[in-house]
Amino acid sequence: MAHLLSTSCSLKIPSCRKTFFQSPNQGPNAFPTSFTVKTSKSPVRRVVLTGESSQRSHTVYATTTPIKQEASAQKRSSLHQSSNDLSKQKRVMVIGGDGYCGWATALHLSNKGYEVAIVDNLIRRLFDNQLGLDSLTPITSIHNRIRCWKSLTGKTIELYIGDICDFEFLSETFKSFEPDAVVHFGEQRSAPYSMIDRSRAVFTQHNNVIGTLNVLFAIKEYREQCHLVKLGTMGEYGTPNIDIEEGYLTITHNGRTDTLPYPKQASSFYHLSKVHDSNNIAFTCKAWGIRATDLNQGVVYGVTTEETAMHEELCNRLDYDGVFGTALNRFCVQAAVGHPLTVYGKGGQTRGYLDIRDTVQCVEIAIANPAQPGEFRVFNQFTEQFSVNELAALVTKAGEKLGLDVKTISVPNPRVEAEEHYYNAKHTKLIELGLKPHLLSDSLLDSLLNFSILYKDRVDSKQIMPSVSWRKIGVKPKTVMA
Amino acid sequence: MAHLLSTSCSLKIPSCRKTFFQSPNQGPNAFPTSFTVKTSKSPVRRVVLTGESSQRSHTVYATTTPIKQEASAQKRSSLHQSSNDLSKQKRVMVIGGDGYCGWATALHLSNKGYEVAIVDNLIRRLFDNQLGLDSLTPITSIHNRIRCWKSLTGKTIELYIGDICDFEFLSETFKSFEPDAVVHFGEQRSAPYSMIDRSRAVFTQHNNVIGTLNVLFAIKEYREQCHLVKLGTMGEYGTPNIDIEEGYLTITHNGRTDTLPYPKQASSFYHLSKVHDSNNIAFTCKAWGIRATDLNQGVVYGVTTEETAMHEELCNRLDYDGVFGTALNRFCVQAAVGHPLTVYGKGGQTRGYLDIRDTVQCVEIAIANPAQPGEFRVFNQFTEQFSVNELAALVTKAGEKLGLDVKTISVPNPRVEAEEHYYNAKHTKLIELGLKPHLLSDSLLDSLLNFSILYKDRVDSKQIMPSVSWRKIGVKPKTVMA
Repeated sequence: MAHLLSTSCSLKIPSCRKTFFQSPNQGPNAFPTSFTVKTSKSPVRRVVLTGESSQRSHTVYATTTPIKQEASAQKRSSLHQSSNDLSKQKRVMVIGGDGYCGWATALHLSNKGYEVAIVDNLIRRLFDNQLGLDSLTPITSIHNRIRCWKSLTGKTIELYIGDICDFEFLSETFKSFEPDAVVHFGEQRSAPYSMIDRSRAVFTQHNNVIGTLNVLFAIKEYREQCHLVKLGTMGEYGTPNIDIEEGYLTITHNGRTDTLPYPKQASSFYHLSKVHDSNNIAFTCKAWGIRATDLNQGVVYGVTTEETAMHEELCNRLDYDGVFGTALNRFCVQAAVGHPLTVYGKGGQTRGYLDIRDTVQCVEIAIANPAQPGEFRVFNQFTEQFSVNELAALVTKAGEKLGLDVKTISVPNPRVEAEEHYYNAKHTKLIELGLKPHLLSDSLLDSLLNFSILYKDRVDSKQIMPSVSWRKIGVKPKTVMA
Repeated sequence: MAHLLSTSCSLKIPSCRKTFFQSPNQGPNAFPTSFTVKTSKSPVRRVVLTGESSQRSHTVYATTTPIKQEASAQKRSSLHQSSNDLSKQKRVMVIGGDGYCGWATALHLSNKGYEVAIVDNLIRRLFDNQLGLDSLTPITSIHNRIRCWKSLTGKTIELYIGDICDFEFLSETFKSFEPDAVVHFGEQRSAPYSMIDRSRAVFTQHNNVIGTLNVLFAIKEYREQCHLVKLGTMGEYGTPNIDIEEGYLTITHNGRTDTLPYPKQASSFYHLSKVHDSNNIAFTCKAWGIRATDLNQGVVYGVTTEETAMHEELCNRLDYDGVFGTALNRFCVQAAVGHPLTVYGKGGQTRGYLDIRDTVQCVEIAIANPAQPGEFRVFNQFTEQFSVNELAALVTKAGEKLGLDVKTISVPNPRVEAEEHYYNAKHTKLIELGLKPHLLSDSLLDSLLNFSILYKDRVDSKQIMPSVSWRKIGVKPKTVMA
């Protein structure tokens, strides 16, 4: 697999208002932009985008302003109030900050007063290029995104472009930024991607496991008090026939009792890589006193957060394809373009789900309430459980309200998974720390569907059906026909 | 970390009797030897060593003959009888067949009538070179070993030199040898080695995880009925406060019951790599129908097996150093050279142990009784439990009988582990399949001690003390002073 090389670059951008795409309801904007890229012997250079705020004219696109955000934040509970106080001292490195969850999180934390740096090799964009995929929503470059954010809010997000599997690069980011917390989204995050062929399976496990090992070593070496907030997945647990607890299970066996790591049964090379990470992190907490929170996240849906809605250049990606698209987002896009909802197999597969606005909230809560030195803390990060059939029914109902004729078909399940099973996963720890869930509602579904309708001309219907089979994965590199 | 490149070579060796080392009780033998190494575009070529049996003169060194072995095998239980019948059809690839357990296993299986191929990149020998270590026992090259075996027994062991992380190489070995079973010892197997520095930690996890992934893909692609016999470690379980079962645990929780993978608590990057492997293999059994046996092996002691004792060129390695040496072997060497036995910390650390003669027996049993397609079977492969203090007491007593003055000291524990804990691990499945354990006895300890005394002039006492700290591991590559 191609790995991006670490590059050093400095950018000089006179304006932050360029939109490189034409959004559905707005004409093109073509402000002049220039940039220079320099190479350097140093593996990294801090990239700070310095938008000229006097030229701002883009508030017309903003749905909320950062000032309003700060004001609304002040109305929160006293728990959150103290979180915000803490946040003033916090420097947070968001690894994978150009991705779906990472970008929304970086903006949210910046908005809440954290000093934020994004570390990303941008390989998620390369995956799209290589597989011929694209986000439903048009997204601009990370450079434009950060510049836009600076112009809108006056807040700087630092940017380090490079690969955390390159330890020399990662070291320099730590020495330069000196994070108090690291939020680690920087992994290949698609189960189907990891099941395309041998080289993608190997890439996924290498990239995720070695990248995380490097992060652990960087914390130990350079920032031993730094709190690691690591994104895991609910998929690590599989679908056991007993209740899923948050990371640990107290077991009585032959008259003796111990609290042990919850048994994991991951079901793709991607999910397995997260299990490997969790085990590696738990060991370093014990051996080195690392403080870590493992967020076993459910399936994320939604596209906008308060921050990404401020400007179209801040727009988040939305994946609907068979490789990176997840169930609810994909169903909404399918409904919008008149494609039947594709239920895999019997559709009884039940998982935890959450709104992306809760992803960013959960990460903020974890940072504001850090794990203790040596503690390996596990939170199950989702708000509601649904089966795939339940999701299809909800989307069908919401679509009908909007005049859409929504059909559902069962397609052969490309995965190897139970299609009818018990599922009851606990998720109280984040609630206890102050999470106020955004539950899936009719209005949210309307909004998601409307978003999908807005961009439906961008849908490539060839990408909707599942293209990756768990059983047919082979050793020959799979290539995509033009 | 340096990876060995796959090399292609053909060897033409007129005689198989050369000994390159001078053993303690015998004069040097200097038979002429020549070989040529050719490069080829093909990543692998079958290397078959063709000793000229007419020139044999080495039976003076043999303590038993293969004919006697076959005869004694016929006296075994009917279960084993049927195993041996089965074995006639079996082609077994031993990955890591030049190592401590792998070499003994390859010879044992060859002796029992299996067609054996060794796949090895010989990197274990490179580790010794790089760290300035050496086996207590003098060992000859893998080429000489195999040639000697051929001369003694007439049995051919095929040899593939290369790295299983190189999938092109591994593919060719599968296509060429067409194994019915793969015994996978081909991993970096030292916990301290994995804790030397960041690069060794990363190497260990990369090498072990990716190598095993490649083996799984090779089986799926080329030999889907092939039985994978994978060496795991009892260290995967850690030291839970409940009984350790064999791979799985039936758990009743909140009124519901399921049988789940036994929770793992590994305590080094090496042990963690084995947990990762186990999880990956379990998934492929479920998703692809791979048949696999995971042998969670205890600490192996001893140096000779029936086969390695046949000739000094077949002699196995024995490690006593702080990186690769394991408790009992190390204690015997320490006693032989008058070095105090080095108990780490309180010495209450309890583990499962087994004689290397039982390692080879267990692997044979696993091969002869293969897992079913889709089955992920876990056996705990050890015969007795001892605490470190108990081992030290046993070695002290045995040493006194031989007139040695054996002292024991406690040294600061370089590891992070419980030094006093409950430990009760089940190990009945291999017994049920016919394992006849060689229990640790006074006579065995005498023999191990005598072996150590025989070679005590080869001991480098600088290598005895622990040199790797679990807590002090850093990111800078650790080098060894000359």
